[in-house]
Amino acid sequence: MARTIQSLERAAAVLRLLAGGERRLGLSEVASALGLAKGTTHGLIRTLQQEGFVEQDGTTGKYTLGAELLRLGNSYLDVHELRARALVWTDDLARSSGESVYLGVLHQQGVLIVHHVFRPDDSRQVLEVGAMQPLHSTALGKVLSAYDPVAHSEAADGARKAFTEHTRTGLEEFEELLDLARARGWASDIEETWEGLASVAAPIHDRRRMPVGAVGITGAVERVCAGEDGIRAQIVAAVRDCARAVSRDLGSGRF
Amino acid sequence: MARTIQSLERAAAVLRLLAGGERRLGLSEVASALGLAKGTTHGLIRTLQQEGFVEQDGTTGKYTLGAELLRLGNSYLDVHELRARALVWTDDLARSSGESVYLGVLHQQGVLIVHHVFRPDDSRQVLEVGAMQPLHSTALGKVLSAYDPVAHSEAADGARKAFTEHTRTGLEEFEELLDLARARGWASDIEETWEGLASVAAPIHDRRRMPVGAVGITGAVERVCAGEDGIRAQIVAAVRDCARAVSRDLGSGRF
Repeated sequence: MARTIQSLERAAAVLRLLAGGERRLGLSEVASALGLAKGTTHGLIRTLQQEGFVEQDGTTGKYTLGAELLRLGNSYLDVHELRARALVWTDDLARSSGESVYLGVLHQQGVLIVHHVFRPDDSRQVLEVGAMQPLHSTALGKVLSAYDPVAHSEAADGARKAFTEHTRTGLEEFEELLDLARARGWASDIEETWEGLASVAAPIHDRRRMPVGAVGITGAVERVCAGEDGIRAQIVAAVRDCARAVSRDLGSGRF
Repeated sequence: MARTIQSLERAAAVLRLLAGGERRLGLSEVASALGLAKGTTHGLIRTLQQEGFVEQDGTTGKYTLGAELLRLGNSYLDVHELRARALVWTDDLARSSGESVYLGVLHQQGVLIVHHVFRPDDSRQVLEVGAMQPLHSTALGKVLSAYDPVAHSEAADGARKAFTEHTRTGLEEFEELLDLARARGWASDIEETWEGLASVAAPIHDRRRMPVGAVGITGAVERVCAGEDGIRAQIVAAVRDCARAVSRDLGSGRF
């Protein structure tokens, strides 16, 4: 069994550091954040810079992430089968629901958005491909936690932060939500992550019936919800239709 | 001066290999493509996999790029000052020109698209953020080659591939195009890269008057061109207005 390579692990830690929080850091700041000697850190950063993964600001001398990461991230999207199969169906879902559509997969302790279709109303919107959503409070995250055992452990063992007064942070109530999601075949998030917004999502399965991702919509509670606690049935049906269509395209059986 | 780290350079080579051509490769294929021993390659891939940069297909055992690259690439966009400053102006340009707008920066031997605004006509379009365009034949590439000495050497020394019968591949005619671009302050590409499409671009300068990127539109020749060889003056003016506005926002002087 091959061992892992320490300098690579450290380089990945440098990139993760530059991707979060400050994002523009000097050599000493990187070294002290990672608990490494300055010389060691310089060697890592110098190589990362040479490969395009890190860039140095000419004026301040501070380091930021480099353009090569964007190019490689784009190549990741190109090769992503789930995303490729979902393109047409998610466009249709945005049109039929009139809301923003998101396709997410489990990545580390959250949901990575691999595709985002804008709400079809010509309003200014920011593309969220590559962004992360929490597992415990979003519809996409609950669907993944309900169907994917790895996602479930991440969400059950991780800190379930309260984003609004509606976020369910207790383990028991979270497990109840997942039971409900499995019983219904879909999950919702009514102002549990974002004030004023609700989301609905359903699971996507591949030919081996493995849960490979989730697709859902997010929109204003005034448009998405009906009555006290409910999502409009028409929206739920549209989201589930989309998830079924993508699953079929991935080779999942109908029964 | 710190030395570069060989295992990091090799890991970057693995990622570049997976980003181009085949994109799904077995261990032996990666090892032989990079001229490394299988054991060495396995150690690299195992670590890259642990860090989320590489994923392994459960069925075929082949390796592809991993989701962590998408997440980091998205963080790169978040921190990108040029892109942040250009968001509003490029939206305006798409609206006023009715065409797709692209913001590009020099990366390696080409133009990396860091922002893309869809043509405002509700047609189905594919987001090209993270994609590369050639330096020698596109409007964005010519602008960068005309104003940035590093881009110029890459384009002058590199292979200038003919994409259509209109591509200028000779060095002398390429330099003439760049002289024209510098004299006019903008560059065009009429079916030199894509059949039926023309592009127009202008340079963006920062507070130190350094060329940091280019902004431009791409559209059908029937809409973008007027007469035999020309771009419609209104389109040229809109693109140059946008480039000036972004430059001013970056602190570039007006004179």
